[in-house]
Amino acid sequence: MSWLETSIMAKRGVAGGKETSRQKITIEQQGKFHYVYGPYADPVIEVEPGAVVEAETHDAFEGKIKSETDIPSELLNVPFLNPQTGPIYVKGAKKGDCLAVYIHSVKPRGPQPVGTTCLISEFGGLVGTKSTALLNKPLPEKVKKVNVDENGVYWSDRITLPYEPFIGTIGVSPEIEAITSLQPDYYGGNMDLPDVAPGAVIYLPVQRDGALLYVGDCHAIQGDGELCGVALEIPSTTTLQIDLIKDHKIAWPQLETEDMFMTIGSARPLEDAARIAYRELVRWSAAEWDMDELEAYMLITQCAKVRLGNMVDPKYTVGASVAKKYFR
Amino acid sequence: MSWLETSIMAKRGVAGGKETSRQKITIEQQGKFHYVYGPYADPVIEVEPGAVVEAETHDAFEGKIKSETDIPSELLNVPFLNPQTGPIYVKGAKKGDCLAVYIHSVKPRGPQPVGTTCLISEFGGLVGTKSTALLNKPLPEKVKKVNVDENGVYWSDRITLPYEPFIGTIGVSPEIEAITSLQPDYYGGNMDLPDVAPGAVIYLPVQRDGALLYVGDCHAIQGDGELCGVALEIPSTTTLQIDLIKDHKIAWPQLETEDMFMTIGSARPLEDAARIAYRELVRWSAAEWDMDELEAYMLITQCAKVRLGNMVDPKYTVGASVAKKYFR
Amino acid sequence: MSWLETSIMAKRGVAGGKETSRQKITIEQQGKFHYVYGPYADPVIEVEPGAVVEAETHDAFEGKIKSETDIPSELLNVPFLNPQTGPIYVKGAKKGDCLAVYIHSVKPRGPQPVGTTCLISEFGGLVGTKSTALLNKPLPEKVKKVNVDENGVYWSDRITLPYEPFIGTIGVSPEIEAITSLQPDYYGGNMDLPDVAPGAVIYLPVQRDGALLYVGDCHAIQGDGELCGVALEIPSTTTLQIDLIKDHKIAWPQLETEDMFMTIGSARPLEDAARIAYRELVRWSAAEWDMDELEAYMLITQCAKVRLGNMVDPKYTVGASVAKKYFR
Amino acid sequence: MSWLETSIMAKRGVAGGKETSRQKITIEQQGKFHYVYGPYADPVIEVEPGAVVEAETHDAFEGKIKSETDIPSELLNVPFLNPQTGPIYVKGAKKGDCLAVYIHSVKPRGPQPVGTTCLISEFGGLVGTKSTALLNKPLPEKVKKVNVDENGVYWSDRITLPYEPFIGTIGVSPEIEAITSLQPDYYGGNMDLPDVAPGAVIYLPVQRDGALLYVGDCHAIQGDGELCGVALEIPSTTTLQIDLIKDHKIAWPQLETEDMFMTIGSARPLEDAARIAYRELVRWSAAEWDMDELEAYMLITQCAKVRLGNMVDPKYTVGASVAKKYFR
Repeated sequence: MSWLETSIMAKRGVAGGKETSRQKITIEQQGKFHYVYGPYADPVIEVEPGAVVEAETHDAFEGKIKSETDIPSELLNVPFLNPQTGPIYVKGAKKGDCLAVYIHSVKPRGPQPVGTTCLISEFGGLVGTKSTALLNKPLPEKVKKVNVDENGVYWSDRITLPYEPFIGTIGVSPEIEAITSLQPDYYGGNMDLPDVAPGAVIYLPVQRDGALLYVGDCHAIQGDGELCGVALEIPSTTTLQIDLIKDHKIAWPQLETEDMFMTIGSARPLEDAARIAYRELVRWSAAEWDMDELEAYMLITQCAKVRLGNMVDPKYTVGASVAKKYFR
Repeated sequence: MSWLETSIMAKRGVAGGKETSRQKITIEQQGKFHYVYGPYADPVIEVEPGAVVEAETHDAFEGKIKSETDIPSELLNVPFLNPQTGPIYVKGAKKGDCLAVYIHSVKPRGPQPVGTTCLISEFGGLVGTKSTALLNKPLPEKVKKVNVDENGVYWSDRITLPYEPFIGTIGVSPEIEAITSLQPDYYGGNMDLPDVAPGAVIYLPVQRDGALLYVGDCHAIQGDGELCGVALEIPSTTTLQIDLIKDHKIAWPQLETEDMFMTIGSARPLEDAARIAYRELVRWSAAEWDMDELEAYMLITQCAKVRLGNMVDPKYTVGASVAKKYFR
Repeated sequence: MSWLETSIMAKRGVAGGKETSRQKITIEQQGKFHYVYGPYADPVIEVEPGAVVEAETHDAFEGKIKSETDIPSELLNVPFLNPQTGPIYVKGAKKGDCLAVYIHSVKPRGPQPVGTTCLISEFGGLVGTKSTALLNKPLPEKVKKVNVDENGVYWSDRITLPYEPFIGTIGVSPEIEAITSLQPDYYGGNMDLPDVAPGAVIYLPVQRDGALLYVGDCHAIQGDGELCGVALEIPSTTTLQIDLIKDHKIAWPQLETEDMFMTIGSARPLEDAARIAYRELVRWSAAEWDMDELEAYMLITQCAKVRLGNMVDPKYTVGASVAKKYFR
Repeated sequence: MSWLETSIMAKRGVAGGKETSRQKITIEQQGKFHYVYGPYADPVIEVEPGAVVEAETHDAFEGKIKSETDIPSELLNVPFLNPQTGPIYVKGAKKGDCLAVYIHSVKPRGPQPVGTTCLISEFGGLVGTKSTALLNKPLPEKVKKVNVDENGVYWSDRITLPYEPFIGTIGVSPEIEAITSLQPDYYGGNMDLPDVAPGAVIYLPVQRDGALLYVGDCHAIQGDGELCGVALEIPSTTTLQIDLIKDHKIAWPQLETEDMFMTIGSARPLEDAARIAYRELVRWSAAEWDMDELEAYMLITQCAKVRLGNMVDPKYTVGASVAKKYFR
């Protein structure tokens, strides 16, 4: 964890990147789950900066899809989708601050087969949808249940995929809006970005007192774009370390690992998500490298990477990153 | 008003398209305005189907932009924009019903110059924005105050535009979300569609008990697309007749006038808004004309019209319409 | 034709908007048709500015779809689609000039049923396509043959649509590219814009010596967007009056009628087509009204109209227009 | 080079992935360069399958930008941009075949500073452009000249980037179109995809006799998306091994390395480029893994990667790839 000591979280956080306490949120404690990111729900716990929280999350279907013969659209009840654990009230957090969340671990939770993916009618990246509204007949719905442990994702007799877990949905509450947990936006939410994984710090722009952190929708593995709309969904025990950077205004989520710094944008069409992420990265680089914005624009052009989070949610998500080694 | 008797509202509405009562909402009665479309606000009045409501609305800036030397971004406090009158609770309305709102009139309200348009930094159709995030320097902000009465919009000594008023923002509450009144979507909202004008009926899909109708953001005139982001904004007295169609599920707003029937979609990119509107129109036409969906698709291709509402809001809005005369 | 005398074509054209000669291009004279807009074909005729040309055009399928039992994809041979009459070499035309083409008439040509529309696999606005590449099964292909004369489009026993003819594809050659006649762009091409109709003047930016004017793809009627991809296609006799404006550089096609002035943009996504058209209109209006560009931006916002040409071709086409009456 | 023996090129190519001859194209031999991908140019050489060709290429500016005080828009003459070496006629190639091109090496050529990047007015991913047409003032133009050798890209005293060369533009001729070399499409072209690098095989769909292979626009390094529109451009000596797969129809370019298999799509908006690439990958995977298309769709969702080529050219380019290890 030594790189963490050099992170922005450690350098600027109220708790200096240090653990100050431990708390849990079990499924039972949580009780009622939330389907919107908003300020109209009561906090499930309150924490101090530096708190490590072990949170249990449901899978995106709240466990309703149990068998490969289930038909998702008969079991899922819009808009009660993608249940979120939280909100967590972070003491001292105010609009204009930045929440820093270091991800300790994401572990599968519950009986096998613990993983689920599926095809849902009029949802996904290669089908007509409610937005890309077409006259073609929808694909058939289909469910796949998969055994998952921390060593692998056992897709079939022939195919084992690695266990590469991450958090699909995490964010803070908007100031006055309450937005479906299916959507990503400036406050985080359903980004479905595989870099939001153990070992990374995600930075989120606080919009109201207490920040109101929500988390859910963990994935055992996912390709770029979450193409069919559904990753390898798992219920999880997710452990987060929550720190707070005072008076540090960011417009969109940011992410840091040992090797890189990333900015994250969500929008439609997809190029707008990339534009947001890249504008933030250019401005961050100009400040960090102490160079002119146009010089940073030309330099970022030569050395940045793009990660596609999702191309299926109400807004698409793109991360743009630059390797830390170029700054040294 | 004879065409109204043949409207869907008259034929299927609980009140049969008839006026059953009269109510008012003054600025004073309203007191606190709303900046989200959601279920977390208390109704300002309750009405029976058939009620005619005379509602006072603020302009989109809540009257804060008073002079041509004002600087919009200094006076406007995000997210407290586009104040809405309401919500109006409609007795008997349930999820799966359809609200029918006949627009009697939209009149300018208050001292001259009662009309305002302006340029706001990083907002509008021909500039880089927070979504289409660019490095270009923003345009300067600019305010124009304009005298408006029911005979004209007095732009300058040389130019008088007609008074062609309509409602920029109208809709019902989502089921559990609370979404900025700057956004249009399946429940209505900030469509900025010039056809939502006196003489038309707008149909809205009810998502929860009482429907919770909001209205605001009236315009004295506006071109297609609301190009610079700001129409000729006016505070108004707007008179609406509210009826209810039970068990009539529509996916997106619809609109009817003496001459045409319209379906309305909102999305990004703009072609998705058009796809939504057109898919709804094809399906409606197939049912209305009693023809095969593919035959309706080919026929609509030859005779439908498209109206661009806005190309500046968080989702763009398109109306697709077909003349009633082709049905006779 | 008196309005024409006040047109830009009359005021600035080499021939002053006057007819100077008459020429014909019959199907036989044309011989080989063209499937690209480019400089690599020999001109079929040469004309002086002021020439009126009566040109015979094929329908978009070169007459191959003859019966309602035909299957389009079996008869159509990509990329040999949308055959064009021309090119017409206009004497004196140079890069940087502007061609002005006044449309006298578009008449159906050939035996009944002279009109054709159809559904083609993976083509159209409400289906997955080669670009919006999806896994949904394509719609079935379908052909409809329709009797058409100058009084009407006889869709079915119940439905007669008006005869509202226009030119689907018209333009000049790019400088060095040769681009499929299915595509619209800065040089014109397959705009499918219903305003390109008898009584209008279209202005086209000349890219090389002789301009090399192509024309084809006439429609008896079409709704906005050419939704299913295929209008009511007819072979035609189309009469054009060709004038030339020297040293008059325009970036995109423009159009003028008695009542309005229009600028035309083609791009994807659709909002970019609208941006192009609107930027051209703002700049044109600022010059015409002798006002500041930002003032024109605010004014156009209040009074311009948008016409959707196509939302199915390789680029989508939008026209933005302003009524001439506001200029007086 | 042993992996190559297991490549599709080796397994199905006429020359079995073996070198059969050596040829050169120097700048002098090339003489006139080409600015369109099309069939209207004479081949510069003819080769047999298995030929290794050492081709000299200009940089994208044909060497016109020589100093940091140059102003690009004054030196560049649209549409004579992005000069291409070729076309190379491949004997035996017919429409419906597939060209396989193994990239041996890309080496910088010429005096230092051999690398150029710059900002060009109204071109790039974070500015208003000719398509995303805005009223904002363009950014200033700017040129940066950089020393480059096979060990590094010497950006500044503080920053050295790695030499990670690739081919920005490579492809075959369309059947009848001649399209600007600035555009990528189904035939290849200006994809600006960093995976088109030494050690990879690119597969291209032949459209006409001889294939007519063009190549140019090499880059010393480039980040994902070629953000400002201009990579680190270099004149190069590029060595290609050209093989031919008979009767092997592919719809879009594909790419293979030791570790992965990639499909490539180009379109606007960006999600359509991703849809094309992903549909091709799903179908390829279903065939390769011998599984149902829907099963492949769900599996690709979990394990594929996306690479953004460019987000600045007339069409945007995305590569979607899957690791070969999952197939074993």
